[in-house]
Amino acid sequence: MPSDQLLSRLTEIVGAKGVIGDREAMQPYMDSWRDNWRGQARAVVRPASTAETAAVVKLCVETRTPIVPQGGRTGVTGASQPHDDGSEIVVSLERMKTIRAIDVENDTMTVDAGCILADVRQAAKDVGRLFPLSFGSVGSCLVGGNISTNAGGINVVRYGNTRALVSGLEVVLPDGDIWDGLRGLRKDNAGYDLKQIFIGAEGTLGIITGAVLRLFPRPVAELTAFFAVPSPAAAVAWLTRIKGAFAEQLTSFELIQRRCVEVTVQHIPGTSNPLSGDSPWYVLLEVSSQLTGSHLQDVLEAAFEQGLAAEEVSDGILASSSQQAEALWHMRESIPEAHKAEGRSFKHDISVPISKVPEFLARAEAGLEGAFPGCRMFTFGHLGDGNLHFNPLAPPGAGDPGDLQRVNRIVHDLVTALGGSISAEHGVGRLRSEELAHYKSPIEMKLMRTLKQTFDPLNLFNPGKIFPAG
Amino acid sequence: MPSDQLLSRLTEIVGAKGVIGDREAMQPYMDSWRDNWRGQARAVVRPASTAETAAVVKLCVETRTPIVPQGGRTGVTGASQPHDDGSEIVVSLERMKTIRAIDVENDTMTVDAGCILADVRQAAKDVGRLFPLSFGSVGSCLVGGNISTNAGGINVVRYGNTRALVSGLEVVLPDGDIWDGLRGLRKDNAGYDLKQIFIGAEGTLGIITGAVLRLFPRPVAELTAFFAVPSPAAAVAWLTRIKGAFAEQLTSFELIQRRCVEVTVQHIPGTSNPLSGDSPWYVLLEVSSQLTGSHLQDVLEAAFEQGLAAEEVSDGILASSSQQAEALWHMRESIPEAHKAEGRSFKHDISVPISKVPEFLARAEAGLEGAFPGCRMFTFGHLGDGNLHFNPLAPPGAGDPGDLQRVNRIVHDLVTALGGSISAEHGVGRLRSEELAHYKSPIEMKLMRTLKQTFDPLNLFNPGKIFPAG
Repeated sequence: MPSDQLLSRLTEIVGAKGVIGDREAMQPYMDSWRDNWRGQARAVVRPASTAETAAVVKLCVETRTPIVPQGGRTGVTGASQPHDDGSEIVVSLERMKTIRAIDVENDTMTVDAGCILADVRQAAKDVGRLFPLSFGSVGSCLVGGNISTNAGGINVVRYGNTRALVSGLEVVLPDGDIWDGLRGLRKDNAGYDLKQIFIGAEGTLGIITGAVLRLFPRPVAELTAFFAVPSPAAAVAWLTRIKGAFAEQLTSFELIQRRCVEVTVQHIPGTSNPLSGDSPWYVLLEVSSQLTGSHLQDVLEAAFEQGLAAEEVSDGILASSSQQAEALWHMRESIPEAHKAEGRSFKHDISVPISKVPEFLARAEAGLEGAFPGCRMFTFGHLGDGNLHFNPLAPPGAGDPGDLQRVNRIVHDLVTALGGSISAEHGVGRLRSEELAHYKSPIEMKLMRTLKQTFDPLNLFNPGKIFPAG
Repeated sequence: MPSDQLLSRLTEIVGAKGVIGDREAMQPYMDSWRDNWRGQARAVVRPASTAETAAVVKLCVETRTPIVPQGGRTGVTGASQPHDDGSEIVVSLERMKTIRAIDVENDTMTVDAGCILADVRQAAKDVGRLFPLSFGSVGSCLVGGNISTNAGGINVVRYGNTRALVSGLEVVLPDGDIWDGLRGLRKDNAGYDLKQIFIGAEGTLGIITGAVLRLFPRPVAELTAFFAVPSPAAAVAWLTRIKGAFAEQLTSFELIQRRCVEVTVQHIPGTSNPLSGDSPWYVLLEVSSQLTGSHLQDVLEAAFEQGLAAEEVSDGILASSSQQAEALWHMRESIPEAHKAEGRSFKHDISVPISKVPEFLARAEAGLEGAFPGCRMFTFGHLGDGNLHFNPLAPPGAGDPGDLQRVNRIVHDLVTALGGSISAEHGVGRLRSEELAHYKSPIEMKLMRTLKQTFDPLNLFNPGKIFPAG
């Protein structure tokens, strides 16, 4: 169908303000928030309801028009950007931002997929509840995108990934049918749990238009603390001790290499290292509880004494005010920006069993230093989840795509050998689709392709994402 | 293929002690542990490894022999019993009972699907960890069956259903291929999360042969308490208060109708009602924590004062010893046995949003008393999950299949209208397959059938379960 005719049909469905066909006006929808993914599209369509979304999909099926579902464009893998050939339409959920219902006694909230995560968190707070999902892009990302990428973040050690926070879904299927799975139930074994198929599918199996989210009690006490640890192995032992002391009350457990702290202090005004001395590694942790803060502090101090004696930690500081806690988190969250200022790097978003983190770091460092003399490690991440952002800084002269490929082989071969994942929390998108096909077993790739083919036989939903294009 | 030839081929794969072809010797595998499901099979096959299981499946594909995967036969829906026509083989996982590995620092355990749940719990305890899944059949059920039914139980309010406790799976697929998804990762967004498809699929999409399970710190303090509550609405308000006070430290929250207590005290020696007075409803709750018990008790007592003032509770008793706590749980767990002694009943395993439980109970009782004068309510269950075992006792003369059908319509129509599930924790099996097809939307049934057809195009895996036969 010619583009002007397609735009006219789309406008019939979503109204004039729901369709953008002008190239300049489309531009913001073509780019990613960071990491420079961009493309071209025939149109951007912004449905205002599930019914409109379904009608758009039916038109796309009729006209064989590929669809790129889009949330807040805060992903880093190119999953929500169109390809360069301009054959696709972008379906942005941004106009669907109604909080449909809150059931306080059931601890659930039903939302449109286009709600901004920060608004969802605020709505939960307004009724005395917590929606725990959070990360840097909280003010821009849309909850439908969070669900489609099964987003992680800094609270996963306590609350799980997004998958664990979703109780029900509403999905426009690739044939334009609407599946209403908006259930707010803790237990439901009436047949296959279909929502699981769409969570983390990156828009390749349908468009999530609504969700029932789980809410939690708001912790009344929080402790944030920063520790110097002599090695990754010591950090793992310290994590084990802290989990034993606090169980689910451990909310975050972050590992930070000294270089990350130094570079951040150097590049980001207002950040500092709260500990003197020159520990090679640091841990930033948070515990939160329904119980009183003074009691938490007693438990943490007892663990610290034991950790000192066991040489798991060498120093530590407990934030004595919310300002101090915020300063610690500000430093942690500024690491990616400081990292960028240091020049080219090789980024990885990997996970391994927590027990394997020390071995991973030692072997990856040795492998990279052998292949790229002068390569500087730059490692931070969510040790509590076994998830590291392993982003070595390229030595001078390195950093082109061929080098990245060699680095990926070293890092991802090792991750795979240790039973890990080459994409822990960011998803696959376009960034890691070739890597995925390289590392997944043929049987697993076949199962994944079978699912894709079954749900989306015309390959109209986010083609070239997760699976390599062509 | 003639049965003697099939048996001979099977014996080549699994050895003589892996095959049972004699009708009498097969008998224990034909029956369920309770609720009188039974059938006939051509043979019972007991593979000793994943490779043997895969070879058996390949033979079944070649010979078009339907398979009934079987664990500990403790399910109550007939999912693991063969049909009456004797055309199927039963594949029992009972010989695969190796605990393959425990990774203490990663808090994971890799097991064969044939491990008994109690053995898994003990192995976790031996390394200072908790595997929280538990219910009455803990000493008989196999963990592969727990996963295939996404089993619930009494700790779901804290630890989630079995799905939340599974980090990885190994599955023999319906074509005999082995999918190795035995990952012990907290974060893994490298493609579709395929394990989710097999969890809760009741053996209709493949045979689970191994799993990576999540372990937890062992709580060091537990409190068990029993409360009189004036109404279901008061119980919900009390639950909300307790969740606010304890968050994840709330481990169990059970609602019990007075008749259930009375009947249990009457039929089960050694049980008693620890509270005097005649409250219409009771709550049994447990909290457990890493922190000290005395502090938990302070929090519970403060909540109790508030609950009394708000008329959410009218009386309460805190178990002062582990013997007292066990006596309370013994009473709760004896309810089903006492129930049986009262005669015919109409059983339901339903869930609704927690906020809708009072409305469900009022409307279901009114509807049933209108249709079956003299019908006595008999309700208990996991209020913390919105999951009730709603098992009214049939009046004299009622209880035949036609009556059950009428009762199901009243109860399940209401459950559906309230956004609930007709199978909360027991699964579908044969028991609720017709009900499922009646209540699920055509779109959802189509999606489910499409999945089944895609994975198992020959319909050899547990045919007639989840989906009605024929």
